[in-house]
Amino acid sequence: MTSRAGIRLFVDVDLAPGGEVAMGDTHTHYLRNVMRRAAGDEVCLFNGRDGEWQARIATLDKRGGSFALEAQTRAQEPEDGPWLLIAAIKRTRLELIVEKATELGAARICPVTTQRTNAERLNRDRLIAIATEAAEQSTRLTVPEVAPTAPLKDMLMDWPRGKEPGGRLLYLFDETGGGIPMAQAFAAHPKDQGAALLIGPEGGFDQSELDAMKILPFVNALDLGKRILRAETAALAALACYQAIAGA
Amino acid sequence: MTSRAGIRLFVDVDLAPGGEVAMGDTHTHYLRNVMRRAAGDEVCLFNGRDGEWQARIATLDKRGGSFALEAQTRAQEPEDGPWLLIAAIKRTRLELIVEKATELGAARICPVTTQRTNAERLNRDRLIAIATEAAEQSTRLTVPEVAPTAPLKDMLMDWPRGKEPGGRLLYLFDETGGGIPMAQAFAAHPKDQGAALLIGPEGGFDQSELDAMKILPFVNALDLGKRILRAETAALAALACYQAIAGA
Repeated sequence: MTSRAGIRLFVDVDLAPGGEVAMGDTHTHYLRNVMRRAAGDEVCLFNGRDGEWQARIATLDKRGGSFALEAQTRAQEPEDGPWLLIAAIKRTRLELIVEKATELGAARICPVTTQRTNAERLNRDRLIAIATEAAEQSTRLTVPEVAPTAPLKDMLMDWPRGKEPGGRLLYLFDETGGGIPMAQAFAAHPKDQGAALLIGPEGGFDQSELDAMKILPFVNALDLGKRILRAETAALAALACYQAIAGA
Repeated sequence: MTSRAGIRLFVDVDLAPGGEVAMGDTHTHYLRNVMRRAAGDEVCLFNGRDGEWQARIATLDKRGGSFALEAQTRAQEPEDGPWLLIAAIKRTRLELIVEKATELGAARICPVTTQRTNAERLNRDRLIAIATEAAEQSTRLTVPEVAPTAPLKDMLMDWPRGKEPGGRLLYLFDETGGGIPMAQAFAAHPKDQGAALLIGPEGGFDQSELDAMKILPFVNALDLGKRILRAETAALAALACYQAIAGA
């Protein structure tokens, strides 16, 4: 949508005035060999806690490099977006979700297993790399957490309940129908609580899972509308609508 | 999200009680060699005008085949979803948009060129095949039209204006800011008019294009929110929100 001249990188070191910070191997390779940058060139850095900084490449050769920090260009802001709980699906579709959910402001992406999930083994490092790159290419100041795959029932046992500090309402997309329309539910979302969106597996939830979830006080069953959506489409539609209607 | 046993195919012949219809070469190959089906097996057919039909494979061999129609299972319904006008972008991203926009109920997908579009030559037949397959795998009764690539300014010249029969409001996603929030605009969408969603190129619209569009009576400039989204993410977010808030 917009042109973004310049390079924006996520780093895992502290960012403070006048600092010079070492460049990791990945950034050394990327800046030198992929982007053909050299000492003196400008970049933009963020670490998820100290805002966004204008910096310059101070040194760069094949053994490594460093950044010189010039000025903070944006203060850190909270980015407490919704969580996305997604039943494990095929690798390429999950990668697409991680990229798009990062752009759409998800704070945390949690692959979950359900009764009908055929859990493929996930390469979590690859998903984290995809989230990092998507955050760099957006205007985010944080990279969303990609949680390790966990059984859905374990997550529900330890859920941060509605009225507690950090409590979250869980929106369950129930493809068997009968939930309330998504737009209506999101318009009524209480401002002082977080949200999580749960998208089931391609084969649907088991009826016993649905029954068990619907009696939990922090669960709201929603209807996604008359269209049948693939899991990744449902995840992105839900996230986009939440952000447009209830999000910051 | 849901299991869909059975095969659902789009055909370009009339569907009527008691009919037997010839199978095209693509379906002959698909049913025989890919899905390993044989005479007597059930399929579901739709053609975009006669509803959805239960049918059986009547004959099938390497030279061709036919379907015997058994019963109409759904009457045809209007599927007058929004149009999606999207500045031509990279092939793989446009293919993703066509698949997802079909699931999300777009009635027509129009690749457009703008002042800052670097128009790659599109393989329209391939986009139509993707739309057809996505419609088959959803519950749609129509396949969205994939229009030939056209200059945006030509489309605006011939636009079906708001109050005319078949008139459509055009929602322009203006990444320079200043538009009204998407959720607010869609909530006020008049029920007797259609909608079209326009997503600009990666480099943004030229200011002169924005100025020219904003004075048109059928154009509403919208704000997509504080996040910077890639063109394909913006397109799917806009479509999902329109359908959830104003759609059928």
